[in-house]
Amino acid sequence: MKFTKIPLATINRLSVYLRVLEDLLEDNTDVISSERLARHCGVNPAQIRKDLAYFGEFGVRGVGYRVVDLISQIKEILGLNRTWNLAMVGVGNLGSALIRHGNFIKHGYVFAAAFDIDPEKVGKKLPNGLIINHVDELEEVVKERNIHIGVIATPASAAQSVANQLILAGINGILNFAPVQIQVPDCCHVENIDFTIKLDSIAYHLSTNF
Amino acid sequence: MKFTKIPLATINRLSVYLRVLEDLLEDNTDVISSERLARHCGVNPAQIRKDLAYFGEFGVRGVGYRVVDLISQIKEILGLNRTWNLAMVGVGNLGSALIRHGNFIKHGYVFAAAFDIDPEKVGKKLPNGLIINHVDELEEVVKERNIHIGVIATPASAAQSVANQLILAGINGILNFAPVQIQVPDCCHVENIDFTIKLDSIAYHLSTNF
Repeated sequence: MKFTKIPLATINRLSVYLRVLEDLLEDNTDVISSERLARHCGVNPAQIRKDLAYFGEFGVRGVGYRVVDLISQIKEILGLNRTWNLAMVGVGNLGSALIRHGNFIKHGYVFAAAFDIDPEKVGKKLPNGLIINHVDELEEVVKERNIHIGVIATPASAAQSVANQLILAGINGILNFAPVQIQVPDCCHVENIDFTIKLDSIAYHLSTNF
Repeated sequence: MKFTKIPLATINRLSVYLRVLEDLLEDNTDVISSERLARHCGVNPAQIRKDLAYFGEFGVRGVGYRVVDLISQIKEILGLNRTWNLAMVGVGNLGSALIRHGNFIKHGYVFAAAFDIDPEKVGKKLPNGLIINHVDELEEVVKERNIHIGVIATPASAAQSVANQLILAGINGILNFAPVQIQVPDCCHVENIDFTIKLDSIAYHLSTNF
């Protein structure tokens, strides 16, 4: 399936809808109106209808969405009806906490390789059974284990060089936790997670409202 | 200073501009054109000019922005010409990795309290010197230590109840790492960081482009 010109904000909201729908399914909800789904997701119902309209017709007018169907349709849209193999680069405090975090595997993201440059870490076994490889082995391991997405949790100073190595190894998707803007060719999609940028937004709201 | 109706996306981009400008200052750059600043930030120059126009006149036509001045102006806009005290709730792998992460203090965010419910953790000293308090002491400690922002790194099942406690203690800003939508009154500003939502966006791009 190919879709073009879908706003990134829509894609991000689809993920939120998916998670809310999965929670509803666990609570044995079969059908949900766009109004109720919207309330759970913190958006307005028109937004949900508009976001889904990019991809076709969903739901039954006057009834709502069948939860199990909408889950499967959103998964197909996002490419989540499969697992994705991740490589962690940088197994410090944050990197190892992320590898242990149960939320990745729950959503089909599997840490299948981990890299560091610290000789104290290379060769050590992580709680999930992975042995930490040296970054020099990156290209070989990425190909052997069919890694799809690189996760960077190195210090800022190392992030660009790690990104370059991931791209040379054929990786086209990077999740970057290092607090620096990395430059990549157009074929590669980068998402940044900088915790302090979210805090700046909170600080702004606290400063202006109180 | 009061500003209204500024899009959240603008606020987030101001944070990115600020970080890039701070790196430029470290590299001894005095003045930068909006074109060059835009390239470093991964946006177009018109976007930067539009974002800054919400807050007044910046830069000198044909010359550019004085880096040190623009840093100080963006900090004033965002409310970052001060420090903000954070409380971490949930000192698991992720929570303790975040407390140790140098990037918070670099940007003026100080972990001044940490809470858990695990009797094995309560009373223990963290590497930054903080003693972990029981969540039952939250209201008292939040007031004593003048905490401004709560950071939730508990399991999803505990996040809403922790958010309620933070709000009762007078907290109006929450950074939520638990993979669940928390409901808060309008006076409170929540930012969510769900790593897998960013991965979904990467998965979508990989699925549609390749």
